[in-house]
Amino acid sequence: MKLIESVPNFSEGRREEIVRQIIEEASKYPKVKVLDWSMDKDHNRSVVTLVGEPEQVLNALFDMTKKAAELIDLRYHKGEHPRMGATDVIPLVPLIGTTMQECVEWSKQLGKRIGEELGIPVYLYERSATRPERENLSEIRKGEFEGFFEKIKDPNWKPDFGPDRVHETAGVTAVGAREFLIAFNVNLGTNNIEIADKIAKAVRHISGGYRYVKAMGVELKEKGIVQVSMNLTNYKKSPIFRVFETIKREAARYGVPVVGSEIIGMVPLQAVVDTFAWYLQIDDFGTNRVIEERLLNELTKEIE
Amino acid sequence: MKLIESVPNFSEGRREEIVRQIIEEASKYPKVKVLDWSMDKDHNRSVVTLVGEPEQVLNALFDMTKKAAELIDLRYHKGEHPRMGATDVIPLVPLIGTTMQECVEWSKQLGKRIGEELGIPVYLYERSATRPERENLSEIRKGEFEGFFEKIKDPNWKPDFGPDRVHETAGVTAVGAREFLIAFNVNLGTNNIEIADKIAKAVRHISGGYRYVKAMGVELKEKGIVQVSMNLTNYKKSPIFRVFETIKREAARYGVPVVGSEIIGMVPLQAVVDTFAWYLQIDDFGTNRVIEERLLNELTKEIE
Repeated sequence: MKLIESVPNFSEGRREEIVRQIIEEASKYPKVKVLDWSMDKDHNRSVVTLVGEPEQVLNALFDMTKKAAELIDLRYHKGEHPRMGATDVIPLVPLIGTTMQECVEWSKQLGKRIGEELGIPVYLYERSATRPERENLSEIRKGEFEGFFEKIKDPNWKPDFGPDRVHETAGVTAVGAREFLIAFNVNLGTNNIEIADKIAKAVRHISGGYRYVKAMGVELKEKGIVQVSMNLTNYKKSPIFRVFETIKREAARYGVPVVGSEIIGMVPLQAVVDTFAWYLQIDDFGTNRVIEERLLNELTKEIE
Repeated sequence: MKLIESVPNFSEGRREEIVRQIIEEASKYPKVKVLDWSMDKDHNRSVVTLVGEPEQVLNALFDMTKKAAELIDLRYHKGEHPRMGATDVIPLVPLIGTTMQECVEWSKQLGKRIGEELGIPVYLYERSATRPERENLSEIRKGEFEGFFEKIKDPNWKPDFGPDRVHETAGVTAVGAREFLIAFNVNLGTNNIEIADKIAKAVRHISGGYRYVKAMGVELKEKGIVQVSMNLTNYKKSPIFRVFETIKREAARYGVPVVGSEIIGMVPLQAVVDTFAWYLQIDDFGTNRVIEERLLNELTKEIE
């Protein structure tokens, strides 16, 4: 079984019929499953979660990008979230039986096709980046759609694929391989935002914490508490249980309890199993010990 | 998706070709998967794990029981494990989309068929038991194959299905619905068996502990440590994390650390997810948040 995930982001979060038409493109591929999708009106942006056989996922992503270019006109797009393309970003994530290196290759194939066939400039980011300053998506996106007409003229910002000029209505698109991202938030039993900020600083990479953790303090005003809001960008190397235990310990330093946590979206079975085995102190335990995983393997064996 | 599990036990653990022929019977059913099987020479017994669509699982179990009756002659069977039948026991476990009540019904259908068509007396046990003294399998099995020729004459031990006389070579069989059983062992950093015994007593139902826990102290002589060896007979009501945390706390009372744990065989995703969510203090988390589970649902939707 070879599976990858992709979570393409489209710059439309208000007109549901547009988003549905884009998602519809994926349904032509029997080995691609749309596991989830959501629209955000404030951000004016939608996020789709696809999982499937790599070749069909790539084809689905191309068709979705093509459809988004037909239906979305960035000249009239406004929203809180920064964006530079109708299809803003396409991450490829190795899931089962696939490697990061393969995803890097596939991101290049997809980027090339989008650039050449759709005339949309493509930037490779994260693990696919061709130069260090393109690893970070927010660096690429700086200036957004409107600023890119100038930015693209800078030789440092020559696209990896496609024309050297911004697509008039669809902008530019980032494509890249990355690890599975877990959005994990820990709620603290206090309304003191300074404590959440301090703990966020303690665990996040940029200020000396865990390498694959991005974190910030957030106020949950309705609940009257604060939260350490995180992206875990590599749950294998900076695992969720270690980050959580560190936060609990740091909070205890201030006499503050952890009152709960939340995970936004989905998680891979591996992350759940790793946490299970760590807390229960089981050395010899993998996903193959979970009945549902074995069933999934049996079923996909048949289908292939 | 409707799935049940069954873990039939056969009284043959030495001649692999016999066990293989029995397992072969299950492979005729496309919606039945043999997830695991193991033979134990000392016990002279084999255990097969089947998962699948209920009706096909029942048919597979019937065919396996028939084949075992043809190939195993209990008059010549010796082994450490108590046994009363060629097919000794057939548990049915609700797994996904199925209820305990359905499994009770199915166990009766299967028992009736084995009794009537194969002439093997059948006792319903656990949740399918027709009287309290038959709930516990070891009560039914008391006397074993050899003793059953007398025991069956006692009106209290009239079989639920099939003839009132023991099958000459295949003995009698127990069939019943039960919850998924997790075999969970916790290793202690001491060679003092008394401590393991005391902790086993603290957590097990029979001596005042958790309702769905069976436990005993065991010496691991090679490792020079002791173990609390358990069967969790209902992981939903006496969950693994609570039992584990209680053992840790009891061990600390004696100044003894928990040095590791092990799970024998497989676990349902629900048990893993419950443990994950408990330790990370996530209120709102279920198996549908795990990517692999969603894929499994998508795939089985198609197949149906």
